Amino acid sequence: MPDENGADVLYKGKQVLVTGGLGFIGSNLVRRLLQTKANVTVIDACFQDQGANLFNVKDLLDDMVLVVADIGDIDEVSSYIVDQDIVFNLAACTSHIGSLHNPMQDLERNCVSQLRFLNALRELSPQTRIIYSGSRSQYGCPMYLPVDETHPLKPVDINGVHKTTVEEYHRLFHELFKFRYTSLRLTNIYGPRHQMHYDGQGFLNWFIRQGLTGQDICVFGDGKQERDFLYIDDVVDAMMLVGQDERCEGEVFNLVSEVPVSVSEAAEAVSKLTGASWRCTPYPPDRSSVEPGNIRLDGTRLRKLLGWTPKANFEESLEKTISFYRQYGRRYFQNQVSRVVLNKKGPE
Amino acid sequence: MPDENGADVLYKGKQVLVTGGLGFIGSNLVRRLLQTKANVTVIDACFQDQGANLFNVKDLLDDMVLVVADIGDIDEVSSYIVDQDIVFNLAACTSHIGSLHNPMQDLERNCVSQLRFLNALRELSPQTRIIYSGSRSQYGCPMYLPVDETHPLKPVDINGVHKTTVEEYHRLFHELFKFRYTSLRLTNIYGPRHQMHYDGQGFLNWFIRQGLTGQDICVFGDGKQERDFLYIDDVVDAMMLVGQDERCEGEVFNLVSEVPVSVSEAAEAVSKLTGASWRCTPYPPDRSSVEPGNIRLDGTRLRKLLGWTPKANFEESLEKTISFYRQYGRRYFQNQVSRVVLNKKGPE
Repeated sequence: MPDENGADVLYKGKQVLVTGGLGFIGSNLVRRLLQTKANVTVIDACFQDQGANLFNVKDLLDDMVLVVADIGDIDEVSSYIVDQDIVFNLAACTSHIGSLHNPMQDLERNCVSQLRFLNALRELSPQTRIIYSGSRSQYGCPMYLPVDETHPLKPVDINGVHKTTVEEYHRLFHELFKFRYTSLRLTNIYGPRHQMHYDGQGFLNWFIRQGLTGQDICVFGDGKQERDFLYIDDVVDAMMLVGQDERCEGEVFNLVSEVPVSVSEAAEAVSKLTGASWRCTPYPPDRSSVEPGNIRLDGTRLRKLLGWTPKANFEESLEKTISFYRQYGRRYFQNQVSRVVLNKKGPE
Repeated sequence: MPDENGADVLYKGKQVLVTGGLGFIGSNLVRRLLQTKANVTVIDACFQDQGANLFNVKDLLDDMVLVVADIGDIDEVSSYIVDQDIVFNLAACTSHIGSLHNPMQDLERNCVSQLRFLNALRELSPQTRIIYSGSRSQYGCPMYLPVDETHPLKPVDINGVHKTTVEEYHRLFHELFKFRYTSLRLTNIYGPRHQMHYDGQGFLNWFIRQGLTGQDICVFGDGKQERDFLYIDDVVDAMMLVGQDERCEGEVFNLVSEVPVSVSEAAEAVSKLTGASWRCTPYPPDRSSVEPGNIRLDGTRLRKLLGWTPKANFEESLEKTISFYRQYGRRYFQNQVSRVVLNKKGPE
């Protein structure tokens, strides 16, 4: 639904590129952008286990340009990144655990691809607005709560290190070449169109899968850790506003709901809606090392600047999410994308 | 000369690996290590323009194992990184300007190679002490003076971003795998065995080259910027101590002289000793973007912990340096190393 804040009308007719546009956040954003009559191009590498799912936009494939390629493969993508008005740069490897098992892959797919892409973008689309999706994981274990944007960055996994490195590329290009970037540091987003075939990303969605497939919902630790769940529609609202707001240029913001919910409360809520049981279980060793403990982000800066507040009610949004996966679960519970090659549409 | 602090005796018979050991800091360290009767292995990629120079250790080649390879080329280096007691991890691309002209190369040679190397080291030499050479450039423009180790890291060039990323790998491996690392953030080191064939690194040495080759010494800006020059022998002293001090494990320290000298004073001193004139000239555009302004680092933490203070007198050390290049300048004023392939000695 178009936003009452009115940013949506500003996208009409704009050239908008969404990297990682087949993924969870990307596809929800793409769907909204297409409602505004923006000219949308998606670049997505369709790496396995990274959330890309053609089903996310299958009904809209005729309305957009879809390029299945790594953003770092400049030969493949260069003609599609010319003269873009706005780039939502969401392409990333996002698995914390995965980055420890395969740090080189995380480096290649995050830093190497992003640096190539940003270099090309600087040349081919120097005036573009660019919105980068950073991550809570950049902060690591909090030294104080709530964690504001000036909190030191001490990630507890390789993925967090690389998310920061790529954010730093954006900042540096802003300072050196007037790159018009904003970084939004995101945390615990849930909602429809999230991958549900493995548990390396987004544990609330994983609870839903467990609940819907007749398993016990498995809470690591004592469940008292608080998390700040943000519904995908609120994320999209905020991104649409930020993409049109010059005051956000050159800035980094936390993007959070600031309504802390404990992990056990979340499990209980999913349990109620699905009928599944839930139980606590000790952290597996590889997970305890990347568990940041109690963490709460301070989202005051962005809220004040934009006059934005999340609208979603936790229980209602959870119900909508569960209802989506009840209907389409089979499209998400197995891996859907493994290097699909499409007939690409060329740029206009 | 062995150190009166007595750390040197602790190196006798130890397996010590120096990455980047043909370069400026590396070769000075290697020479000292060989005096202590350590068993020294050097790995150096001999990349052009990165400071590697065989002449730096030519008289000592029979006393060490030299491997000409990129540290990230694990097939080549793995047999040499087994069971090392101490690793001085100095291999790096260090040019600020170069990293802006060729950011991908800086990424490959710093982050990609280092992550591969550290992964292998974790497996093959998990108990090793490892000393990483960080850089002042990690801080960027100072928000306050003097800059201590908790100062935010906002580099003004890609090389600074990557130096931080690699430091973060060390920190993370320390936290996850008990990697026994220390990072020393270095700044403005001068002395014998520095490359002198281009001006992308170490401007005080470049002044010396200008002075010795009949050119005017060229000071960018008004020359009032203060710098904290540290003589190479003091750096080696500190590194030898840190490598044997358990209290330094898991820590980051500034390593500085804390005797600020303005750039024009430095030019004047070189001018006196060489007879050359000096003059101020505006910053070229590509250099002004990576110029951090007045910067002074706080070295208190390391000094207090080690009881270490730099011994070098600026004028005397400058004279020693100039005298070295008077004698051996022809070995340094042209590029000496371009992928030299040596007959490698295998590990014992």
